Amino acid sequence: MAEAKTEHEQREKVRELIKDVQTTVMVTHGEGDELRGRPMVAAGLDADGKTLWFFSNSGTEKTAEIGRNGSVLLSYSDPSKQDYVSVSGTARVVRDVAKQKELWTETMKTWFPKGAEDPSIALIAVEMTGAEYWDAPSSTLLHAYGYVKAVVTGEPPKGGENETVSFKA
Amino acid sequence: MAEAKTEHEQREKVRELIKDVQTTVMVTHGEGDELRGRPMVAAGLDADGKTLWFFSNSGTEKTAEIGRNGSVLLSYSDPSKQDYVSVSGTARVVRDVAKQKELWTETMKTWFPKGAEDPSIALIAVEMTGAEYWDAPSSTLLHAYGYVKAVVTGEPPKGGENETVSFKA
Repeated sequence: MAEAKTEHEQREKVRELIKDVQTTVMVTHGEGDELRGRPMVAAGLDADGKTLWFFSNSGTEKTAEIGRNGSVLLSYSDPSKQDYVSVSGTARVVRDVAKQKELWTETMKTWFPKGAEDPSIALIAVEMTGAEYWDAPSSTLLHAYGYVKAVVTGEPPKGGENETVSFKA
Repeated sequence: MAEAKTEHEQREKVRELIKDVQTTVMVTHGEGDELRGRPMVAAGLDADGKTLWFFSNSGTEKTAEIGRNGSVLLSYSDPSKQDYVSVSGTARVVRDVAKQKELWTETMKTWFPKGAEDPSIALIAVEMTGAEYWDAPSSTLLHAYGYVKAVVTGEPPKGGENETVSFKA
């Protein structure tokens, strides 16, 4: 059984898992009670260790949904490693050319051919407020089936780690 | 570029992806606007091809959340294959011993030592109403980085498939 982690260690663990899995599904509030989810990759994390930045096109359903309700969930899943992180956060759509330049990499030209100042860019900043993660213990990585059993019900796995982490204050 | 699929083929594609990824993150409405997500594995799919069944403990936050608001999102992600499916659905918590017996497998004893009739079992039935998937074309499976670029913004990848599928009627 893993030793109890400090809040600092738990937050670091969340950041490591996010970095490893890389692609998240950003879940937003759609029409009525409907939930929408789309795969995205964060372009950066602020020095505060809490704010993730994403590039988007402006004027999409996604940016409209965030405009109406900024409460989002970022789901990071890697079934091959049995790593799962659910990050709760508050999203806002921002037009900030300085930030766009800071986060810009050449590969983004695939999407924004006019470069970092492309007028079609809208940044999405997600301030993490809390997270929960399920992490397979190394012994069960060798026995993935045993771990799959363990997550069947969505309740904390036996032997693995399941932690709820606050990013507030 | 993939040929246009019929609705039947699109639904089959969603079912295949769900079967392959296996573990989903079930996203529910928590307190206020908060969203919650937990890894789970479906125990079965009805012959209608629309209703997924999950085992849960009764009296958990998850079952309470579904009781208050049955609108859920099932997120299936496999970053190693660059497969992503977002399923919208309506969930309900059911106590149905006959169904529990039908879906029961011996491995579930890890969770419910009293067997298929364990009084702590609550089934969750999710009726799929719609889905969206992002599927890497086979050529980019060999160039995962190229595809990661393609999903950076959450908009449809170039060369890959992005389809919105209805499960209504």
